[in-house]
Amino acid sequence: MELPEPPYYAVIFTSRRTDGDRGYAERAAHMSELAAEQPGYLAQNSVRDESGLGITVSYWKDEDSIAAWRTHLEHTETRRRGRAEWYTEFDVHVTRVERAYRFERP
Amino acid sequence: MELPEPPYYAVIFTSRRTDGDRGYAERAAHMSELAAEQPGYLAQNSVRDESGLGITVSYWKDEDSIAAWRTHLEHTETRRRGRAEWYTEFDVHVTRVERAYRFERP
Repeated sequence: MELPEPPYYAVIFTSRRTDGDRGYAERAAHMSELAAEQPGYLAQNSVRDESGLGITVSYWKDEDSIAAWRTHLEHTETRRRGRAEWYTEFDVHVTRVERAYRFERP
Repeated sequence: MELPEPPYYAVIFTSRRTDGDRGYAERAAHMSELAAEQPGYLAQNSVRDESGLGITVSYWKDEDSIAAWRTHLEHTETRRRGRAEWYTEFDVHVTRVERAYRFERP
């Protein structure tokens, strides 16, 4: 994951899924694509294990980019469905990246 | 996950595993326990999927707590083994939590 020099921003979304798909997988993939098209988007990583616990981290240029994506109509509707259908619980942390480093096996 | 009012700090560790266990699972569980005993530790979440991609986020009171854990002897030795044996690549992001919110199904 190639990212610019800090500071930039990371949004950490930690969630636990309800049982059953209920249209979740398709919508999640679409949201991931849509996020990547937004101004200020840098990168994202998403992992969910068999227990239903998931962490998605998206990286953004600045807080304005995060705020704009948060008010995107389709994203807002998707968050509503998330609370109603897809998640039993979640945490969102909006964070400022102070420093970062990377290891790649030679 | 009950956390204090921001600001506090989050360390995002995104990694891809090598093949085979090589003592990884046991050491990872021990590191998780040891981290939780450190001054300034708040919480952690860790997820790895079947593809070998993992995200661990640990939350800390302040940057001094993160620096102290980073220099802990056993943790330093474990990071050395991580680079030598357990990971093909990883990113570390040290971030300051600006705001956080939580949803729990009623």
